This record gives sequence, C-alpha cells and structure tokens, in this order.
Amino acid sequence: MVNFEEVKKMAERIESGDYERIEPSHISKLIDHTNLNAYATKKDIEKLVKEAIEFGFYSVCVNPVHVKFAKEEVGDAGIKVASVVGFPLGQNTMEIKLREAERALEDGADEFDMVINIGKLKDGDLEYVGSEIAGAKKIIGDKILKVIIEACYLMDEEKVMATKLCVDNGADFVKTSTGFGKGGATVYDVLILSKVSEGRIQVKAAGGIRTYEDALKMIKAGAQRLGASRSVDIVKG
Amino acid sequence: MVNFEEVKKMAERIESGDYERIEPSHISKLIDHTNLNAYATKKDIEKLVKEAIEFGFYSVCVNPVHVKFAKEEVGDAGIKVASVVGFPLGQNTMEIKLREAERALEDGADEFDMVINIGKLKDGDLEYVGSEIAGAKKIIGDKILKVIIEACYLMDEEKVMATKLCVDNGADFVKTSTGFGKGGATVYDVLILSKVSEGRIQVKAAGGIRTYEDALKMIKAGAQRLGASRSVDIVKG
Repeated sequence: MVNFEEVKKMAERIESGDYERIEPSHISKLIDHTNLNAYATKKDIEKLVKEAIEFGFYSVCVNPVHVKFAKEEVGDAGIKVASVVGFPLGQNTMEIKLREAERALEDGADEFDMVINIGKLKDGDLEYVGSEIAGAKKIIGDKILKVIIEACYLMDEEKVMATKLCVDNGADFVKTSTGFGKGGATVYDVLILSKVSEGRIQVKAAGGIRTYEDALKMIKAGAQRLGASRSVDIVKG
Repeated sequence: MVNFEEVKKMAERIESGDYERIEPSHISKLIDHTNLNAYATKKDIEKLVKEAIEFGFYSVCVNPVHVKFAKEEVGDAGIKVASVVGFPLGQNTMEIKLREAERALEDGADEFDMVINIGKLKDGDLEYVGSEIAGAKKIIGDKILKVIIEACYLMDEEKVMATKLCVDNGADFVKTSTGFGKGGATVYDVLILSKVSEGRIQVKAAGGIRTYEDALKMIKAGAQRLGASRSVDIVKG
C-alpha cells in the first residue's frame, strides 16, 4: 500500500532542501514546548510555561507529576497542558496506563501523549494495542490523544500497522517518538505516518527536532504538530 | 560526613585492579537478569527466564506488563521476579506509582525496583520522596523494595540524601541507576551508597555493567546485587 522506495526518494528531496520557509511565529503555534527530564524541578516547569507564553507555543508537555502545577502556572494564558502517559517505555499494564490518563485528566491536562505497547505490537497482539488506544480515548473524551509509536524500534510495516491502529481506535494524532529511544523523528517516518493516516488523524513529529530547519522539514513531510525542548532556539531561527 | 576525596581515591584503586576474583557461579546468584526494553516481546521474556534458570541468576527483572507472564514461566524454578515501578523517569504522581506497585504485587512480583521522584529531591521536598518510598514499602510488605536514585543526575550530597531517605523509609536496597539515564553504575557511586547505608540496607549496582571485571569492581565497592542485561556474558567471564 505504501511505496517505501518512493517515500525514501521524497524524504531525500526534502532533506536536500525542497521545503518552504515559514515565519517562525507561525511555527510557534505548532509546538508542544517540552520538558520531560527526570530531574525537572518546579523552577524548570515555571520557566517552560513562561517561555510558552512569551513565544506563543501551542502547549507545554510535561510529566504527570507536573500537570497540576503547569496548569496553575498557565492560568488563563491560553496555553494547553499536555501530559505524557506510560512514558517513555509504554510497558505498564493497560490498567495503570488508563488510570494514569484519568489522573492526568483530573489534574487538568488538555492533551495526552501516550506510548503504545511496542512489545505487544511486535507480538502481533494488535487487539491489545488497539484496546489501549480506544480505552484512553474513552476516558479523555474530547480532549486530544496523541499516540506515540516510537518508530525507531519499528519496521516500516509495523509503522503502517501502528498508524492504522491509531486511526481505527480514536486517536487524534499519531506521534513518531518519545525522544528517549535510540532515535527521534525522521522525515521518512513522518511521510509514512502522513500517508497512512491520510488526514483522518494528524501527525506529531518529536525527538531530535532542534533547529528551525529541522522544523521546516518535518512540516513539509506532513507534521501538524512538533514536540521540542529547544523550541526557543527553533523559533529564533 | 562522607569524605568524597577519600572515596574518589578508593574508587581509583578499585578501578586500577584492587579487587578479588570471584567464581562466576557465585556472581550469578547476585544478578537480576534484566530486560526492560520497550520492544521486548513474549519470546524475549521466555528467553530471559530460560537463561536465568540455566545460569542460576537471582531473579529476572522486567517491565510491569511482563510480570505475570514471567512469573508463570519461572514456575517452581526458584527464580524471583522483579518489577520496575515508575520506570525509568520516576515522574508519575505518587498515587499512580503506588498503584503500579500494588498491581505488580497482585501479578506476582517478588521484588520492586522503584525510581524516586528526582525532581522533588532537587526541589528539596524530601518529605515527598520519603513518603513515596514508605508508601511503596507499606504496600509490598515483606517483599523486597529497591529504590533507584538515578545517581547520574545527582550531586554527591544529593546521593547521600537520597540514600538516607531509603534507609529511613524502609527500603531494602538503594540502587544506583535505571540504565536509561545519561550514565550507569560507577564504582565511586556504589562506594558512596555503601558508606551512607552502613549495612542497614543493601546496595544494587545497575546500568552499564557488561563484563565480568565490571561485576567484580562493583562487588568490591560494596554492591550486594547487580542488575545486568548482558548477564550471560558476565558469568561466562
């Protein structure tokens, strides 16, 4: 269904400069400004929120323990708060991942970046992977569910399968990477995810997006949202 | 209290060869044979358990979703099953981490390797960090609680503080690292943890222990348990 050879050529064209310049201020609106460090302090989260307000980022993306505080810091500034779920390995039991999503909802999260169970996908237990996605969506209702497939560990056909599971089970986004795996977002992967989702869900590119040029390439490949921790550098061009 | 300069010199001596040879078969009994990969399949866990039985490792250490299956695979072979908790970032809410421990207990885990909330430690919220440790111990009762302080992100004084919190709140072990941070176990850190715990709790070294020599150094520094994924290489010398 997906012609991987053709996608590879498209990726090469984009990598070599075939993409449009976009005003940094337009890119800001696509960025989930992210701090998921294990050692992030309250001060770090304060700083994250301040930067998000100053540069007009779409949201701040934080670990579950910081959701409540981030929400308070944001106040009525209009910045969304995204919580990760089952992060970064995705290897909790389904019960715990769903309760984690529910708790983040209670704490005020607007968006949820959940890691799939990669091992189950590789086991071929697609029903399990799909149930987890559907279960999370059921809990969060009309809030936004982004499903991280951690593409660096997947074969191309598994990326296709994972994206289909996202489409079929109510995800709002399919997201490339946690940023904690052996690789981050690639133009090639974003193209695959975009092709498979065909606009039915959106694509978030995350992991290793460090420069303005990186961001432009991901957008050209089809990303409608970007996850980044160096977001300020990105929009300063 | 701890003379870090002196510890540094001791570490240098050990690193340069001042340690005893130990029979590989004795080392086996100290090893938590570990597979915490996000992409671990059922087959991988089967293999892990088989190796643990063949080489006489102390336990297998797995992600929560694999605990039940690992326990079944072990059967009556006498190998313990360890589950990680709040792994590897430690940045879930306390409620979720404790429920995660409880669920792993229900699934049959004998030991629990829980990551502290590193951010809270850095915020100086020692009561929070202590409560989480005490809360987990209360849930698991006489099962074994290993508390991972992720030393690579801590200043020396924070390592001391974190170890004291482990001692004071009922942990059975203080453990150096997740293996997913920017650094793993070091001889220097194991010496610090051993000195501070003074035998009241045990020390587990984990992260980057790949060879027989690595294992010998950690044991000399005071580790009573080792976490490793390349355990078979270690005991084959």
